[in-house]
Amino acid sequence: MSNQQTEKIRIFALGGLGETGKNLYVVELDEDIFILDAGCMHPEDDMLGVDIVIPDTSYLIENKDRVKAIILSHGHEEHIGAVPYLLRDLKAPVYGSKFTLALLKDQCDEIKLKKRPKFHEVHADSKIKIAKTPVSFFQTNHSIPDSLGIVIHTSQGPILYTGDFKFDQNPVDGKTMDIDKLTEIGSKGVLCLLSDSSNAETPGYTPSESLVAEGLKEAFHEAPKAIVVSTVASDIHRIQQVIKAAENQERKIVVVGKDIERATSIALDMGYLTDENETFINKKEVKQSAREDLVILTTGSQGEPVSELARMGKGSHPLFKLEKKDRVVISAMPNPGNEKLVSQLIDSISRTGADVVYGKTKKIHVSGHASQEELKLLLNLVKPQHFIPVSGEFRMQYAHKQLAESVHVEKDNIYLLEKGEIAEFSKRKGKRTNKIPSGHVLIDGLGVGDVGNIVLRDRRLLSKDGILVVVVTLNKKHDKILSGPDIISRGFVYVRESEKLIKEAEDLVTKSLGEAMEQNQTEWSQLKSHVRDKLSRYLYEKTKRRPMIMPIIMEA
Amino acid sequence: MSNQQTEKIRIFALGGLGETGKNLYVVELDEDIFILDAGCMHPEDDMLGVDIVIPDTSYLIENKDRVKAIILSHGHEEHIGAVPYLLRDLKAPVYGSKFTLALLKDQCDEIKLKKRPKFHEVHADSKIKIAKTPVSFFQTNHSIPDSLGIVIHTSQGPILYTGDFKFDQNPVDGKTMDIDKLTEIGSKGVLCLLSDSSNAETPGYTPSESLVAEGLKEAFHEAPKAIVVSTVASDIHRIQQVIKAAENQERKIVVVGKDIERATSIALDMGYLTDENETFINKKEVKQSAREDLVILTTGSQGEPVSELARMGKGSHPLFKLEKKDRVVISAMPNPGNEKLVSQLIDSISRTGADVVYGKTKKIHVSGHASQEELKLLLNLVKPQHFIPVSGEFRMQYAHKQLAESVHVEKDNIYLLEKGEIAEFSKRKGKRTNKIPSGHVLIDGLGVGDVGNIVLRDRRLLSKDGILVVVVTLNKKHDKILSGPDIISRGFVYVRESEKLIKEAEDLVTKSLGEAMEQNQTEWSQLKSHVRDKLSRYLYEKTKRRPMIMPIIMEA
Repeated sequence: MSNQQTEKIRIFALGGLGETGKNLYVVELDEDIFILDAGCMHPEDDMLGVDIVIPDTSYLIENKDRVKAIILSHGHEEHIGAVPYLLRDLKAPVYGSKFTLALLKDQCDEIKLKKRPKFHEVHADSKIKIAKTPVSFFQTNHSIPDSLGIVIHTSQGPILYTGDFKFDQNPVDGKTMDIDKLTEIGSKGVLCLLSDSSNAETPGYTPSESLVAEGLKEAFHEAPKAIVVSTVASDIHRIQQVIKAAENQERKIVVVGKDIERATSIALDMGYLTDENETFINKKEVKQSAREDLVILTTGSQGEPVSELARMGKGSHPLFKLEKKDRVVISAMPNPGNEKLVSQLIDSISRTGADVVYGKTKKIHVSGHASQEELKLLLNLVKPQHFIPVSGEFRMQYAHKQLAESVHVEKDNIYLLEKGEIAEFSKRKGKRTNKIPSGHVLIDGLGVGDVGNIVLRDRRLLSKDGILVVVVTLNKKHDKILSGPDIISRGFVYVRESEKLIKEAEDLVTKSLGEAMEQNQTEWSQLKSHVRDKLSRYLYEKTKRRPMIMPIIMEA
Repeated sequence: MSNQQTEKIRIFALGGLGETGKNLYVVELDEDIFILDAGCMHPEDDMLGVDIVIPDTSYLIENKDRVKAIILSHGHEEHIGAVPYLLRDLKAPVYGSKFTLALLKDQCDEIKLKKRPKFHEVHADSKIKIAKTPVSFFQTNHSIPDSLGIVIHTSQGPILYTGDFKFDQNPVDGKTMDIDKLTEIGSKGVLCLLSDSSNAETPGYTPSESLVAEGLKEAFHEAPKAIVVSTVASDIHRIQQVIKAAENQERKIVVVGKDIERATSIALDMGYLTDENETFINKKEVKQSAREDLVILTTGSQGEPVSELARMGKGSHPLFKLEKKDRVVISAMPNPGNEKLVSQLIDSISRTGADVVYGKTKKIHVSGHASQEELKLLLNLVKPQHFIPVSGEFRMQYAHKQLAESVHVEKDNIYLLEKGEIAEFSKRKGKRTNKIPSGHVLIDGLGVGDVGNIVLRDRRLLSKDGILVVVVTLNKKHDKILSGPDIISRGFVYVRESEKLIKEAEDLVTKSLGEAMEQNQTEWSQLKSHVRDKLSRYLYEKTKRRPMIMPIIMEA
């Protein structure tokens, strides 16, 4: 612990608290801003038409001259997906491991940044200085190679951010989490720990990734025809184990799918994946191979309706169609909200006569996140004075808080924060202070943030009961209908079968316009709202539906 | 087995196969049609705006004079929800247990049938004759009282339909499944068994409902303030156990929510629920009670965003607001597809500071469906010659088929059917024959079946990128624009922030109409599709979105 005059430290999240995804944590040392991860997330069900969601980073952009670095823990979208968008608006060097940066570069190319950002490669033993602050790293285990924890060394003591992690005693790449280093850092008086809460509700230990070897072996055993393995594109350790399982059965692997082909090829180039026996074959060789010699490695494990796997199941894939006696191994668990899609996928594959191996009991998937005993182990190793549970739904953060209390982190030093809430530290004393604006920015097509609440509300209305456009032409004085009203509907009822309803609705508009004009309501806005009200009431009475009504009144 | 001349028997499903819900099975004995259950289901995610889904019953309506009865196994919506709609179109007597009919009557009242249908109450030991066919019943266990299996006695032997069931050795109402009777029926040479596949993928036995007593006791233990229990409205056995748990803690129960108030009151009136110690209090008494003396019994366990429970969590419920130290017990599991909603609900409740008890490990919920060992037990008791796995996703039926094979039901006598596919029996020999039309009928508001694929496709388009209406007035010759074009959008972009885009789009329409008119395209349809194409391409290029475009060309 240092006795010199200490800086003011503020820690807060712009995403990743009370939600699964778009992790973005900020450490401010006086004027210097350090961004730890900047991820995206999938849209919620009610964000209709939205492609992805990133954090509201307006605070960072307003203070862009103070931002000294974006430091990344690992290459999952939930941790790097917002970086390209952030780099449009601020210029900051990006620090990350080799594999993380390789994935990020790919994303930046897709978004076509004008200026090439500055990437700095780091590894578990890197010790660097950013602005005037020393930053170091530690090895973690997660479901993607080259995951790092981040340590920011302040005069009040180190601040640790784990990223996503677990303690794997038998990691596939042999790199266990660096307990020595954590012990050493722990002895220095850690100011604050930010640790992954995703599995804080799960008792015990998360099994080692290498357990999957056994499950895959069993799943591959005596498969009479082709085997299809579906997993997450970037889960290189899993893919390594699929190679091993395929070799055991003297099968060859063909990788199918843009993301997984890219991830596999990057990992092979960089040495994160080894294929010593040339188990991978290319797509052209598939036709010449016997079904029983093949493993198809692909994605689609979240039940995405248009994935390669889904198309294999529907018989519409150009390269490979599932048949009776094939076997499909789903080596992943559905993310919350995707359960039904996955269930539908399994059902659709079952109809081909192929076997589907899936589910928790089959040992073909393990989580990449630490469970309760591991989270407590980390807390005991690091012995932080202050603790912020991060990453995950609110109740997971809450469960993590309780774990921290159980290993004697002082209750008042645990900060159960919402997005934007600040924990401020001065002379190793912490307090909550005011809040920074935070929220969602929706990305739809090329538009970043141009879909807001009004647009979403309209989409929700339109999706429920459709729209009716009422077109009518009045004379210049607005006291006589010259043509119409004509009603055009989309998404309301099938018009041919509802001719009578539409006809009656048109009559009603004629009548209600007539009434309004008699009462000398000649303003367009008056006439429009009159038509809208009358028609809405009538349609609700007749159909119990409330389509959006758009009156278009022309004059001639 | 009978040696007399036997009737032609056809068995098929119009719903309930390859899906969870809308169970409707049909047994035809020569000309006589018997309908076993007629349920509804919740709309799939892509059925936008749809309220509920019922089976396509056009075959039954075309043959309505042949329909002799609708026989119901139990009162869940998935088994009775389509009966009121069916009764609009055909007059058939309805047979069901007391509790089942009570719930059905309620539904018929809501839908306001013109003619009062004929209800016939039966119980586990009823032996009746419908047309010339004897029908009997057997007691089952399920998560609603008064559940029955149905036996149709044909000259080729009995046909058994289980409805939803499990073998509960300690049922809350003491009525175990009738093994004696099943053995006896089994000895008569059962022609065909239709059995519930919902849990056919689950190994072992489903725990007894009475196990929940323990879980509830633990969940109630030392709760410092109010307890809220959320369960399924019709799960009267569960409610009985909540009464017991409340009594143990000397708490009073107030029931909150339309459905659960109604179900509870029907069950109390009919004696399915007993409240000897007057544990129920009414809502007015809540204000006078101390928080720590209260149990609030309600629904909302599927995460419905506007449930009473959700409102208690948000602090917007008029009767009761959740606070710190309250405890919420979610005594139900999310149905497939509802996991995310439930997760959001738990999160929102956690923020109030109330504890939430939920999940599989807490023994506060057990399934109402038989697991693998029970399904095999039933097959061994009944020894059916033919077997049709019903109720559940295709893969569950498939798993059930494998179970049947493992207990020596002959492989060729197991019918893995899709909706509409017929198993036909003659002289105890079975075969698959042609198919009957089957499908979904969507109910939206008052409309039954008027929302079809075109309407749904439009709603999907509208929900994704919204709509643009382009209004322009031409002269009579269609060679000059008199006013417009004006673009009005909903659900596309927020117009104030995209003025430039909209202005450019209007200019584009002016230009492209001009071109078209120069080329003497004067037909409305030509002009419209010209505008639509040009504008669509432009907007996709600029925004990567594809809003619906509706050109409205007027003439003056």
